[in-house]
Amino acid sequence: MSTAGAARPAMLESPAWERAADVGRAAHALATRLYPICRSLMGEGVRQTLRLLQEVIPLTIHEVPTGTQAYDWVVPDEWNIRDAYVLDGAGRRVIDFKASNLHVIGYSSPIDAVVSREELLRHVRTNPARPDWTPYHHTYYRDSWGFCAPHKLLQELTEPQYRVRIDSSLQPGSLSYGELFLPGTESGEILISTHTCHPSLGNDNLSGITVAALLARDLARTPRRLGVRFLFLPATLGPLVWLSRNESVAANVQAGFVLAVCGDPGEPTYVRSRRGNADVDRTIAHLFQHYSPKGTLRDFAPTGYDQRQYCSPGFDLPMGGFMRTPNGEYAQYHTEADNLDLLTPEALGDTWRLVHMAIDVLDADRRYVNLSPKGEPRLGPRGLFADAERLGILWLLNLSDGKHSLLDIAERSRMPFWSLREGAYRLEQSGLLREVGQRDAA
Amino acid sequence: MSTAGAARPAMLESPAWERAADVGRAAHALATRLYPICRSLMGEGVRQTLRLLQEVIPLTIHEVPTGTQAYDWVVPDEWNIRDAYVLDGAGRRVIDFKASNLHVIGYSSPIDAVVSREELLRHVRTNPARPDWTPYHHTYYRDSWGFCAPHKLLQELTEPQYRVRIDSSLQPGSLSYGELFLPGTESGEILISTHTCHPSLGNDNLSGITVAALLARDLARTPRRLGVRFLFLPATLGPLVWLSRNESVAANVQAGFVLAVCGDPGEPTYVRSRRGNADVDRTIAHLFQHYSPKGTLRDFAPTGYDQRQYCSPGFDLPMGGFMRTPNGEYAQYHTEADNLDLLTPEALGDTWRLVHMAIDVLDADRRYVNLSPKGEPRLGPRGLFADAERLGILWLLNLSDGKHSLLDIAERSRMPFWSLREGAYRLEQSGLLREVGQRDAA
Amino acid sequence: MSTAGAARPAMLESPAWERAADVGRAAHALATRLYPICRSLMGEGVRQTLRLLQEVIPLTIHEVPTGTQAYDWVVPDEWNIRDAYVLDGAGRRVIDFKASNLHVIGYSSPIDAVVSREELLRHVRTNPARPDWTPYHHTYYRDSWGFCAPHKLLQELTEPQYRVRIDSSLQPGSLSYGELFLPGTESGEILISTHTCHPSLGNDNLSGITVAALLARDLARTPRRLGVRFLFLPATLGPLVWLSRNESVAANVQAGFVLAVCGDPGEPTYVRSRRGNADVDRTIAHLFQHYSPKGTLRDFAPTGYDQRQYCSPGFDLPMGGFMRTPNGEYAQYHTEADNLDLLTPEALGDTWRLVHMAIDVLDADRRYVNLSPKGEPRLGPRGLFADAERLGILWLLNLSDGKHSLLDIAERSRMPFWSLREGAYRLEQSGLLREVGQRDAA
Repeated sequence: MSTAGAARPAMLESPAWERAADVGRAAHALATRLYPICRSLMGEGVRQTLRLLQEVIPLTIHEVPTGTQAYDWVVPDEWNIRDAYVLDGAGRRVIDFKASNLHVIGYSSPIDAVVSREELLRHVRTNPARPDWTPYHHTYYRDSWGFCAPHKLLQELTEPQYRVRIDSSLQPGSLSYGELFLPGTESGEILISTHTCHPSLGNDNLSGITVAALLARDLARTPRRLGVRFLFLPATLGPLVWLSRNESVAANVQAGFVLAVCGDPGEPTYVRSRRGNADVDRTIAHLFQHYSPKGTLRDFAPTGYDQRQYCSPGFDLPMGGFMRTPNGEYAQYHTEADNLDLLTPEALGDTWRLVHMAIDVLDADRRYVNLSPKGEPRLGPRGLFADAERLGILWLLNLSDGKHSLLDIAERSRMPFWSLREGAYRLEQSGLLREVGQRDAA
Repeated sequence: MSTAGAARPAMLESPAWERAADVGRAAHALATRLYPICRSLMGEGVRQTLRLLQEVIPLTIHEVPTGTQAYDWVVPDEWNIRDAYVLDGAGRRVIDFKASNLHVIGYSSPIDAVVSREELLRHVRTNPARPDWTPYHHTYYRDSWGFCAPHKLLQELTEPQYRVRIDSSLQPGSLSYGELFLPGTESGEILISTHTCHPSLGNDNLSGITVAALLARDLARTPRRLGVRFLFLPATLGPLVWLSRNESVAANVQAGFVLAVCGDPGEPTYVRSRRGNADVDRTIAHLFQHYSPKGTLRDFAPTGYDQRQYCSPGFDLPMGGFMRTPNGEYAQYHTEADNLDLLTPEALGDTWRLVHMAIDVLDADRRYVNLSPKGEPRLGPRGLFADAERLGILWLLNLSDGKHSLLDIAERSRMPFWSLREGAYRLEQSGLLREVGQRDAA
Repeated sequence: MSTAGAARPAMLESPAWERAADVGRAAHALATRLYPICRSLMGEGVRQTLRLLQEVIPLTIHEVPTGTQAYDWVVPDEWNIRDAYVLDGAGRRVIDFKASNLHVIGYSSPIDAVVSREELLRHVRTNPARPDWTPYHHTYYRDSWGFCAPHKLLQELTEPQYRVRIDSSLQPGSLSYGELFLPGTESGEILISTHTCHPSLGNDNLSGITVAALLARDLARTPRRLGVRFLFLPATLGPLVWLSRNESVAANVQAGFVLAVCGDPGEPTYVRSRRGNADVDRTIAHLFQHYSPKGTLRDFAPTGYDQRQYCSPGFDLPMGGFMRTPNGEYAQYHTEADNLDLLTPEALGDTWRLVHMAIDVLDADRRYVNLSPKGEPRLGPRGLFADAERLGILWLLNLSDGKHSLLDIAERSRMPFWSLREGAYRLEQSGLLREVGQRDAA
C-alpha cells in the first residue's frame, strides 16, 4: 500500500538515539529496585519481580501449574524460601541468606540439622579462583541442599560441627512468566525474550529485564507494522513452556532477540541466529557498521541463553542473542560481584538504543518498485535534486526493482538505512516509488 | 556451429596488442582537431564534431527535434553561440569566449546589458581551490546566463559596472547524435557509448570520443560474431533518447562499455555493471589480471557517466564503465586544465587496446563439448602434445562439458584467454571439441 | 536404519591413530622387497609386483590382451627385458642395466649394434641439473631405444664407438593390473587407485603401492557400510582400461583417492577433486584441520597422476589426489635418488593414518533427525549431561534436521568428527536421534 499523499509517517527515523541516556538511567534505577528480590526458576520472587514490572508496563502474568508438560520437560514444584543460615557454636550466622540471597543454592530442599564440618563442606560451593566472592549456583530438578560462600571463608570453618537451617519449601505451585504484546498492523511479529530466574545478580539478568521493560514502554507509544512481543520468563523452561502453548504465535515471528548480560560496560556482542543471514542478523550487522563499529558479531552456537530453545530445529526462529560481554567471559559472571556496580546507565542505554533501532529497521524495511524505471527520472522538477546524495535517491531508483528491500539497498550502497528510508518516503511522495506487497510476501 | 574443417579463423587472437601505440598517436591527433569546437548538449558544435568523425568512420547522424519526449525527459531547445564577453570601462574583454569557450556557461541565454559589479559577480562562476583555472559549467534546463573565469580574476574586477554580452540563441532545433553499427553474424551485440557534450575539454570527453572512433574504424575491418554498436551522444539525455527509440535493439545488448575520462596517464579503472558479474565484468577482470595488473575494479554505483541510464532497472544492461582516473578524482576535472596536455597517446592507446581485447574476448567466448570425454584422448597422434601445456589442452578437455565457456576455463585455470582460444581451435580441428549452441542459448 | 539397541558399533572411532607407526615400518619393509623389480607399463615386472602383493592381500590379477581398445587408447605390446648395456672398447659395461634398471629407457626396442659415439649420445638421456643422478625415462608408444645415465658420465664417453645391446622384447602380451574389492553393506564404494609402472623408484611409486596394500589389509578386518576398491595399475592406460571395463562400477564411486608420491618426509598435500567440494574434499580439509595442520590443499588441475582420467568430464568422479611433496617439486623426482632412503616409515605411516581416517569418516558420515526437535530435550535423565560438551550433544541436537550430515556439523561446530560420531551414537541409543535414509539418498 502506497503512503503517497498520506501524512509524513512517524517511522521515518528511529527515535532511539537521543533518549538513550535518560533511558539508561531509568533502567539502572529499575534494576536497583529489582536487585534485592530472591528470584529463582519459580516462586514468589519471580512474581514480585513481574508485579513490580507491571508498574512500568501492562504485563500479563501467566501461571503454569506444577506438573504441566512442555515437550520433554515438566513444570516442577515451586520453591520458596524464608531464611537460611549456618550457625557456629557461638550461635553466629557464619553463612546467612539475609546478608545475600546468593548464599543459599537455589531450589535447596529444607533442612534443619546439626552436621559435622566435613558434611557441611560437601554442601558449600565456592569459587577458589575468586576467593572473595560468593558464587551463584542452583540445584533445579535434584533433591539437594547447599550453601554458597566466598572461598576464603572455608579456612574459618574450623569447628567440628555446625547447625544448618534452610527454611524453604518445595511444593506444587506454578511457573510464572510475564508477557506483553504490542500489536502491529500486520500479522508478523518481533519477539523479545529475557530470563527472570536469577536472584541478586545485576548484569545476568537485571540488564535484560530492565532494557526489555523500557523498550516495551517506549514502543507502546508508536503504532507499527510488526507486532512486538515481550517475554519475561525463567531460562530454558520458560521458553519451552511458552512455545508449547504458543506454537502458532511462534510461526509469526519474523525476528527477535534474546536479551541477556547487556548492561556491563563492554562493547555490544551479537550472536547470529541459527539461520545465520536472517533479516535480524543483517540488521544488527548494518547497525554495528554505522552506529557501533566496535560491536562484534558471532556465529550461532547452541550454547548460552535461550536462543538454544528458540533456534532448536523444531522452530528455527530467526532470533539472535544481544549481549555486551558474553556470559562466562567477564570475571564477575555468576558471582556476587555481578551487582549493580557492574551495570552502567550508559551501557544499558546503549543496548536499549541499538535494539530499539534494530526493531525500527525491521519494522520499516520494505521493498519498492520504481515507477519510472527506464533511465533516471528528472529530480529537479520534483524538488529532489538538492537532497539526492544525502538520501541515496539514485540508489533507491536504481535498485527498487521489487527485489531489493531498503536493507538490501543499504548494504549495497553502504548508506545508513534511515537516509534511504527518508529517501524512499520522498520518492513515494513524488510518485516515483511504490511499495510492493507486504515484506513477508516475497 | 563447428568451425572444424574451415579456414583458420581470424579471431584466434586479439590484434589489439601491437597497434596500440600507433592508434594512441592517431587518437591524440584526432582530439587535437576536435578540441577547439564548442560542444554542448545540442547545437552546431555537436554537429561539427560528428561531421569531423565522419571523416574517420561512416557515422550516421540522427537529429531528434526539440519537444520530443524520451521517458521522463523532453528534448529542449538547441543552443548556439557566436560570441560572449565582459567589457570593462576601457572596452577591454576581461572575460572572452573567443579566448576559451569555457568562459561562457553552457546554454546561457542571450544578454546584452550593462550591469553593476555585484550583479556581474552573481553570474561569474570560479573555482577558489584552483584559482588559476577557469572551471566548466552549464545551465541546461534553466533560463539563466553566466560566465566562468579563474578565481584570481575576481580581484581585478574593481570597476563599478561592466558591459556583458552573450550572443547566443535558444531555439527549437534538434538533438544530434552519431551511431554506427557493425553487424555480426549473430543477433547479439556489444554497445559502446561515449558522450559528446563537453566543449574544449580533453580527458572529459575527447578521450572517449577518439578511442571509440578508432575502435570502430578498426573493428569494421574484421567480421565478427557479435555486432558492435557505437553511440556518440550527449550525456544523460542522449542515452535516454536513443533507448526510447531503440528498446528492441537494447534487448540484444550482451555487453557494453561507457567510455569516458580514459586518456589521462592514470591506471585503468573499470566500474562493474549493475549485475556485478556479467560477462563484461569478468572479461575485464581477466584482462586486468593478465595484461594490466595495476588496473582497478570498482563496484557499480548509480553515479558518474551514462551507466546510470543503461543500468537503470528498466534496462539493466550488462554495461560497465571504462575509465582511467575517475571523474572528480583528478585535479584538472571540469577545468581548463583538462586539456590536450592531460591526454597522452600512451594512455589513449592503452585504453583502446584493453577495450579492443575485451570486445575480442566477448566475441570469441563460447562453450564446447569434449567428444572424447572418458579419460584423456591421446595427444601425440594428433600432433597436440608439444603445445599442450601452452594451449591449456588438458584444461580444455577436462572442462569442456558444455557448461564451461572459454572464459570460465580461463578463470579456473588462470591461463590467458587467447591461449585457450587457440587450444580450442586446435582441438576442434582435431575433432576432439565441438562448439555447443550459441553463447546466449544456455 | 537406526542402530538403537544394537551393540556398540565398531566404527565409533577411527582405529588408524595408534597403529600408524607399525604400519609405516611394514610399508617400508614391503617397499624394500618391491624395489629391485623392473616394472613398466606392461610386462613380467608388473606381474612379479602384483604376485608379491598377493602375499599381503588377496589381490585379483587381471590380464588385458594387447590390442584391446580402451576408449581412445589401445593396449600395446608387452615389454620384457633381460639385460642391457653399453660396452667400451675394453669390453667394460659403462652403462649397465644390471646395476640399475633405470639405465635403460622403459619400452626400449631391442638392439645389438656398434654405434658411433655421436649416435650413442643421441640415445642417452641425462639430467644436467643433477649430474650425479641417473634420470628415469620411458618411450611408450614409440619404436625407439635408449639409455639413461648420470650427466657426469658423458665426459667419460670419449671413445669413437661403442657396442650397445638391449636384450628386450616387444610382443603381444597383456596389461596386468591388480584389483581387490572389500564389499560394504551398501552399494556405494570408495576407490583407491595407485600406479604400478615405475621401476626402481621409491616415492614414485612404491609409496602408493605399499600404503594402498596395507590399507587394504587393515580395512578387510572391519565390516563397513561403503565398499572399498583397490586398484594397482599402470598410470594413464591402467585407469582407462579399468574404466572401460567397469563403467557401471564407476557410477557407484562416492569418493576416492589417487595415491602417489606419499612416502617422503614432506607434509601431506591433497589435490581436490574436479568437483572441488565433494565429500572427499571436505573430509580431508576436516582431517588436516584437526590432525595435520601443516597439510595443504590444492585446487584440482588436470595434471599429475590418474585423477586426470577419473576426473575427466565423462566420469567426473569425486576423487582427490593424496600426496606428500607433489611430483616435480622434490629434487629426487624421476631420478635414481628417489630411492628407499627417500621413503620414511614415519611418512608412510602418516599417509596411511590420514587416508584411513578419511575412509573411516566417509564411511561413518550420515544424517540424523532429532526426534525431540522442539527445544532441547533433558540431558540429565538420559545420562548425557556429563559428556555433552565433549561429544557436541547440543550441536547434534540442534543441527540434526535431516539436512546436515555429521561432517556438516563438524564443519559448523569446528568439532572433531569422531566426537560427534560418538555423540550421535549416544543420542541414537537414547532415542533422541534417528538416522535418515542412506547417505547417498539425499
